[in-house]
Amino acid sequence: MSTTPAETAPAGLTFTELVTEEPLDPSQVSFGPDGLVPAVVQDVRDGAVLMVAHMNEESLRRTLETGRTWFWSRSRKELWPKGETSGERQDVHEIRVDCDADVVIVIVTQHGQGACHTGNRSCFYRRLGGSPQRAPET
Amino acid sequence: MSTTPAETAPAGLTFTELVTEEPLDPSQVSFGPDGLVPAVVQDVRDGAVLMVAHMNEESLRRTLETGRTWFWSRSRKELWPKGETSGERQDVHEIRVDCDADVVIVIVTQHGQGACHTGNRSCFYRRLGGSPQRAPET
Repeated sequence: MSTTPAETAPAGLTFTELVTEEPLDPSQVSFGPDGLVPAVVQDVRDGAVLMVAHMNEESLRRTLETGRTWFWSRSRKELWPKGETSGERQDVHEIRVDCDADVVIVIVTQHGQGACHTGNRSCFYRRLGGSPQRAPET
Repeated sequence: MSTTPAETAPAGLTFTELVTEEPLDPSQVSFGPDGLVPAVVQDVRDGAVLMVAHMNEESLRRTLETGRTWFWSRSRKELWPKGETSGERQDVHEIRVDCDADVVIVIVTQHGQGACHTGNRSCFYRRLGGSPQRAPET
């Protein structure tokens, strides 16, 4: 099966037009018991989810200040400026926050080869076997 | 600022065309110490991220079996069939998994008013204040 959103998306329906309320102040972000929020990184061009990482308060602050993504590496336990050495940096267009203020979406321009250390554009380069094979409704 | 991906996405670039490798067997999904993986729910029509929730092994199994989303509610500590009572159910088109196999994306048709309990189409209906105001590069 393949999904064919280009054919099925109603005209004018775009992932960038979801904002209905006033911005949330960054101080209101609800970091988890581990001090982190999941950060979903989405490509500004087509909405592709490129990667999911984590931010602590300091990495969110640096991201806001610099306009490039900073994450918290749970394995290395350190701040991680995405692409600083590899060139796969991400320029931030916008950050969104969900209803519980405990997840953020970072909409970016991805530079270099892609977001994934494997060289793929997105870290989500595999389907899950056995997942439904459903065509979009028309 | 506003992001205008419709104008900037190269022809043929769509979030649905990211898969480069063979499917991963569901038994290979790497659930965290809490038994959960984050599940990013994306609208098949335009790639909008509708919500982020969590799945344990059982909710992933039920999602695969039924073709509708099941999550694990961390607050209620129970399996949660999305929209069963409210009608906001999600039919699954495809599930993807990231390079570390510890995050999934569920691409869905959203029924009802939207994914969010607030009545919004997406839970991400707010920008984060102070986020960069960058126009896409052309």
